[in-house]
Amino acid sequence: MEPGKTRDRMTKHTDVNTLGEFGLIDHLTKDIKLNQDSSFLGIGDDAAAIDLGGGKLMVVSTDTMVEGIHFDMMYSPLKHLGYKAVVTNLSDIYAMNAHPKQITVSIAISSKYTVEALDELYDGIKTACSFYNVDLIGGDMTSSPRGMIISVTAIGEGSMDKLVTRTGAKVGDIVCVTGDLGAAYVGLQLLEREKQLYMNQPDIQPELEDSPYLIERQLKPEACRAAVQYFEKSNLLPTSMIDISDGLASELFHIAKASNVGIIVEEAKVPIHDQTQLKALEFNIDPITCALNGGEDYELLFTVAESDLEKVRFMPDVFIIGDVVEPANGVKLFSTGGKLHAMKAQGWNHFTPGE
Amino acid sequence: MEPGKTRDRMTKHTDVNTLGEFGLIDHLTKDIKLNQDSSFLGIGDDAAAIDLGGGKLMVVSTDTMVEGIHFDMMYSPLKHLGYKAVVTNLSDIYAMNAHPKQITVSIAISSKYTVEALDELYDGIKTACSFYNVDLIGGDMTSSPRGMIISVTAIGEGSMDKLVTRTGAKVGDIVCVTGDLGAAYVGLQLLEREKQLYMNQPDIQPELEDSPYLIERQLKPEACRAAVQYFEKSNLLPTSMIDISDGLASELFHIAKASNVGIIVEEAKVPIHDQTQLKALEFNIDPITCALNGGEDYELLFTVAESDLEKVRFMPDVFIIGDVVEPANGVKLFSTGGKLHAMKAQGWNHFTPGE
Repeated sequence: MEPGKTRDRMTKHTDVNTLGEFGLIDHLTKDIKLNQDSSFLGIGDDAAAIDLGGGKLMVVSTDTMVEGIHFDMMYSPLKHLGYKAVVTNLSDIYAMNAHPKQITVSIAISSKYTVEALDELYDGIKTACSFYNVDLIGGDMTSSPRGMIISVTAIGEGSMDKLVTRTGAKVGDIVCVTGDLGAAYVGLQLLEREKQLYMNQPDIQPELEDSPYLIERQLKPEACRAAVQYFEKSNLLPTSMIDISDGLASELFHIAKASNVGIIVEEAKVPIHDQTQLKALEFNIDPITCALNGGEDYELLFTVAESDLEKVRFMPDVFIIGDVVEPANGVKLFSTGGKLHAMKAQGWNHFTPGE
Repeated sequence: MEPGKTRDRMTKHTDVNTLGEFGLIDHLTKDIKLNQDSSFLGIGDDAAAIDLGGGKLMVVSTDTMVEGIHFDMMYSPLKHLGYKAVVTNLSDIYAMNAHPKQITVSIAISSKYTVEALDELYDGIKTACSFYNVDLIGGDMTSSPRGMIISVTAIGEGSMDKLVTRTGAKVGDIVCVTGDLGAAYVGLQLLEREKQLYMNQPDIQPELEDSPYLIERQLKPEACRAAVQYFEKSNLLPTSMIDISDGLASELFHIAKASNVGIIVEEAKVPIHDQTQLKALEFNIDPITCALNGGEDYELLFTVAESDLEKVRFMPDVFIIGDVVEPANGVKLFSTGGKLHAMKAQGWNHFTPGE
């Protein structure tokens, strides 16, 4: 149904895709001011922060996953889906260098979902809570005219002297990521391909056995708890940090913009898994494109001062991929061919044509 | 699309409607334990509570509104919708005798929504934030294959010695509500009737002028901030409290069950607005049925000790409607005809048949 009267009254009809997700959020929230003394950090980072006094912060993040956009019931087992819905929110808390402690889960479902289907979904939610040691403390359950919508709010504990935002990167800092990139994206292409084959010929078996890593990265990602624990243990404080949900390029732009710096990443240093390399080439996609623009990796991208180089070198599973430079340089990729290419941030989903 | 493989693997297929909303939540969350020291109050009340130390609590509530279930773009102006999405969540914080301070807003939209439409929605969100003095500190924006989904998380400040849950009602307590009931439900019936007339005959004008109160109660409800401020000012601590979102009967059952008490409400004392009375009769519905089972009133239902009767009498806009009795009495209505009728809790939406 069209939003009839309200729309008729308006003179302009600007398509949301003209602004994109981030432009749209900027547009809608640009005039928002924080009036409460306790509102420490508002819109514009992976999570918001509330001042609890005594240097303590509560860190809060919310994300919604919509069936048909973020997941497909043809290949998303409900248990994995529940797990992923929790993990992607915990990732935002870790990205602030904070520790998730509680979540709330709000679910809307159509009646195609049985009690047993919801049992599987909640099994995944509870498994994630148990593994990451967070409590499910609230939420609601309501009906939907079509499909499932899962909205999770994660709440974590942080402190003012340890909070890491997108704004602190400085020229000369080192740029790092916590793991290989692009695998979740290639995993999604694989699942989509097998779905299409299955739809055309339902008696064939899906061929997913040779790329278990890619499938797992797509369907059951993990959040980077170990990295945040390492930061604490080794007294290492990144100067900026963000989780990689929309693709490395998009996140580099966020840090560059928020910190007012440029960033140069070396293509040869961007970690890409062997399975990602192989399958990407099978799909005729350049593996580096998957890493830059694929998304859903849920690794952490962070910067550290050059003086912390040794600490980062001892950190397990961390890759140094580039340098923070003067803002005039923009965000660039130093290719294996020895050239500098301007990057594009293409991470977000376009708003789909809909009713 | 059917949740194919996962569903095939299961032996049972239990329709979610066999349990109902509350039974379903009980079923899915019955084995959840709270492991974090800071998790003070989990699932089962209007909001959860996190222990901040020193007797301070953070109170958190989440709710999702889905187009086609909770609102209809034919008659919900986007500004009102944004306002209502915030207010219904603040209502849950007030129901804990706490003070809302921050919200996060997560929105999923199809591309039928223009930037101007979202401007109107955010205008309503910001207006509610300004009126209730809460800060919009975070959220996300994503696409949806159909329609709009708005998920709001409200965060408030409370204290251990002032927190009011559903569990404290005692035999002998007085049962109160903060305002008249059933108006939002009759308002919805009016809007639905005019929508049907309009769909059949688009050139006629809607007849809503004679019931402005009912339309406003449905489209732009308010949360009971004044009541919570009065409790604080007059040092009055209700023994239990809940907000009336699913209808008085449903909420009475929640308090009776959580507090292990019975409740008897006098029909003649249930406040019903003149417009509600008139229009309900026009629709051939008993006005008391609208008050008991209508929902979306967002008034507070609370109980106080008999010793606090004088304080309640001085409270503006409060109605004493009944008594807390022994649990064996159940939840009953003492009708104007002088008979005791067992009430039914019928508040929730059934899960609609869907894809």
